[in-house]
Amino acid sequence: MGWGDLGVFGEPSKETPNLDQMASEGMLFLDFYTASPLCSPSRAALLTGRLPVRNGFYTTNAHARNAYTPQDIVGGIPDSELLLPELLKKAGYTNKIIGKWHLGHRPQFHPMKHGFDEWFGSPNCHFGPFDNRALPNIPVYRDWEMIGRYYEDFKIDLKTGEANLTQIYLQEALDFISKQQASQQPFFLYWAIDATHAPVYASKRFLGTSQRGLYGDAVREIDDSIGKILKHLQKLGISENTFVFFTSDNGAALISAPKQGGSNGRFLCGKQTTFEGGMREPAIAWWPGHIPAGGVSHQLGNVMDLFTTSLSLAGLQPPSDRQIDGIDLLPAILQGKLIDRPIFYYRGNEMMAVRVGLYKAHYWTWSNSWEEYSKGVDFCPGQNVSGVTTHTQEEHTTLPLLFHLGRDPGEKYPLSFASDEYQRAMEQISVVVRQHKATMVPGEPQLNVCDKAVMNWSPPGCEKLGKCLKQPKSDPKKCFWPH
Amino acid sequence: MGWGDLGVFGEPSKETPNLDQMASEGMLFLDFYTASPLCSPSRAALLTGRLPVRNGFYTTNAHARNAYTPQDIVGGIPDSELLLPELLKKAGYTNKIIGKWHLGHRPQFHPMKHGFDEWFGSPNCHFGPFDNRALPNIPVYRDWEMIGRYYEDFKIDLKTGEANLTQIYLQEALDFISKQQASQQPFFLYWAIDATHAPVYASKRFLGTSQRGLYGDAVREIDDSIGKILKHLQKLGISENTFVFFTSDNGAALISAPKQGGSNGRFLCGKQTTFEGGMREPAIAWWPGHIPAGGVSHQLGNVMDLFTTSLSLAGLQPPSDRQIDGIDLLPAILQGKLIDRPIFYYRGNEMMAVRVGLYKAHYWTWSNSWEEYSKGVDFCPGQNVSGVTTHTQEEHTTLPLLFHLGRDPGEKYPLSFASDEYQRAMEQISVVVRQHKATMVPGEPQLNVCDKAVMNWSPPGCEKLGKCLKQPKSDPKKCFWPH
Repeated sequence: MGWGDLGVFGEPSKETPNLDQMASEGMLFLDFYTASPLCSPSRAALLTGRLPVRNGFYTTNAHARNAYTPQDIVGGIPDSELLLPELLKKAGYTNKIIGKWHLGHRPQFHPMKHGFDEWFGSPNCHFGPFDNRALPNIPVYRDWEMIGRYYEDFKIDLKTGEANLTQIYLQEALDFISKQQASQQPFFLYWAIDATHAPVYASKRFLGTSQRGLYGDAVREIDDSIGKILKHLQKLGISENTFVFFTSDNGAALISAPKQGGSNGRFLCGKQTTFEGGMREPAIAWWPGHIPAGGVSHQLGNVMDLFTTSLSLAGLQPPSDRQIDGIDLLPAILQGKLIDRPIFYYRGNEMMAVRVGLYKAHYWTWSNSWEEYSKGVDFCPGQNVSGVTTHTQEEHTTLPLLFHLGRDPGEKYPLSFASDEYQRAMEQISVVVRQHKATMVPGEPQLNVCDKAVMNWSPPGCEKLGKCLKQPKSDPKKCFWPH
Repeated sequence: MGWGDLGVFGEPSKETPNLDQMASEGMLFLDFYTASPLCSPSRAALLTGRLPVRNGFYTTNAHARNAYTPQDIVGGIPDSELLLPELLKKAGYTNKIIGKWHLGHRPQFHPMKHGFDEWFGSPNCHFGPFDNRALPNIPVYRDWEMIGRYYEDFKIDLKTGEANLTQIYLQEALDFISKQQASQQPFFLYWAIDATHAPVYASKRFLGTSQRGLYGDAVREIDDSIGKILKHLQKLGISENTFVFFTSDNGAALISAPKQGGSNGRFLCGKQTTFEGGMREPAIAWWPGHIPAGGVSHQLGNVMDLFTTSLSLAGLQPPSDRQIDGIDLLPAILQGKLIDRPIFYYRGNEMMAVRVGLYKAHYWTWSNSWEEYSKGVDFCPGQNVSGVTTHTQEEHTTLPLLFHLGRDPGEKYPLSFASDEYQRAMEQISVVVRQHKATMVPGEPQLNVCDKAVMNWSPPGCEKLGKCLKQPKSDPKKCFWPH
């Protein structure tokens, strides 16, 4: 989902009454970011509190490329990384992930080897092959074992767009919360549903109900589900003991718009890019009785902050043996403070841009290559800002492109290099960037090697279901990351 | 102002707490339009309930050109038109206009000759010449006579952007409301301030307070003023007897962005165009005790509806001797009904587009000419939708460009001409358009002739102030309308 998909952020059909109400009862973050414009690195950052370039969720196969964990990826989350659920365990939390894991699917990367006590969901995105058996459909796990596959046991009707997956994930969440409340155990629930990812789907009750088409139906179902989760917490009497945060892992994918792609409001471009449309996220914090209702925060926030903030809520300290990029947002959330901190916009191994205050400096610009663009891959449809949405990787490291995001949130009007304002802002930004680069120790890149042999041919439990597929011979190669 | 300038419509700095609160206490219209993408025709439509092509506020000097009432315009609102205040008088209302009139400045067009009992404000826009006397600065009237001129007696500091005009207009409104309440007289107040028109200004208290720069300062001052007006109504105990409607006369001017131009959210282009950015407007209805708080309406609305709705509120019927385009919105506002009606997008003498339900069909497309564009005049900066934002007037009358505004509010993805959806939608739309064109009787165009002699050289009252300027010889010419 994108920033602009919520009514409260100005989607013209205003079809998210539950999220809008969540905002009116909680705090809306207007300047909240993901750590990467793509799924896997963003989620790795959320769970480790660290930039993907530190935790290994990036590639060095080519410069400034987005990489993730498709079925043939060899790498995954390193054992050396400390994940939020691992740490929360120490404070007695039961941890569950529902939905998409996306930090690697080989046995050593299983979420229950990284701190989760329960899992219901899938390791990858539900890309096809959909209806043939040349490649495996992705598995759905319950805890250690596969219980079926997408398109086989967990149907998605690609013609009508009907699927019950969000309902299944919702019920799983409600049941888990009930169970935890009954046993009086604190819990961490990572509700990482895969809607609204393409191919987009919704359950029958929501199909055709949105002004926005199938994508809007999916958004409405998510909105409805979140309303049900919040009401469930209230009904169980634990809403004042439960901190809830809603956000997304990257900007809306405009390449699949309008049928399968959402909205980033008036921000430039979408998923895969380091423009605001690729990385600014809808974000709402909700905690009745603690967070003042109807609050609005301009705190620069990041999904990595959810790591540090969650630890803080649990009375834990973040690890001191490594660089943590996430900050504790509680002073911003509970006392309305504004904490000075930069936002770094990475694409793969390159810091493309940085935001300091209201200024954003682009050190590199790239939408995608001419080659991809000529094939119809467009991350900025109907948006072409000359010298900004470039189709070659343009280096601006000596003279960054500078925008004032207050006056120009759409990144359309670079400040004049000769202006006093440019000079003043860049002096401040340069210090931040120098310090960041001087202390940066990149992790071992995990997303360089692909091999068809590692695909989900025979996940644990496949024998019981008669769903094991024959694994081909190993043939490791450099993964190809075009964007 | 534009649709996207309000926090409640997704402006990322969310700096309109009073307008946002007005929406939360009243009803937000998401699909509300002006009758023209430019000031004068839009205001003429609001006050007559009729399309500009009927009431004469258009030009036939060239095809599909926006025209307005600059200082050298010869025409103005015809006597044959019945204006809202003229009709409200019959029900005992006292009518006041504060701010910009814009329906002609020659004596016969004076607002007090067209139903207003009081006037404080100016007949035209406050364009320069600013500091020389070659051409007259526009006058500020109190009722029948000029009491000073912009830039002379009513200062705008073009360097700092400081001006007290919005405060002056605010005080005038508060005083008028108090007076009416004291005398127990019903009133119609048309608070038509000229901010945020370029050159943009704000009073000292607001300068530098916005994340958005000077334009944002002006928006904040308007927002603050509206909050004060609503509170004043409440303090006087007449809020439950007073219907308040907030809207704008055209989309934000992107040509002057980012310094002097606002935001149309994710809509395409801005002022001067018949894309959504040019004509979809922020709109809020407020009437405590009558309008359900927090309501949201998808009723297709238009500034012309304010004519008919106001008459309805006053217990009056609209004139039956002429075509009225505005509809009574009260069923939508008070009972949540949806009234089926089309929206016509005119540019001068041409129906450029029509909206029926969620479909919008463009019969003509044009942003502006290559000649203007090459001079830097850009109504769609950073937005170029191939075949849509055309720089020549493109006719599509045999095969209109069709958009679904629910799935694609940004008008980026025309539907395929060959699709069933296109065929079905166009069948319905064609009937509406045929009927509209068959019954259309254009009024005498008022905006064809310009003459320097008619400028505000010597408005009534200038002698008392020693501010009469020498009128040049009459030399009537066809006005030049480049857009």
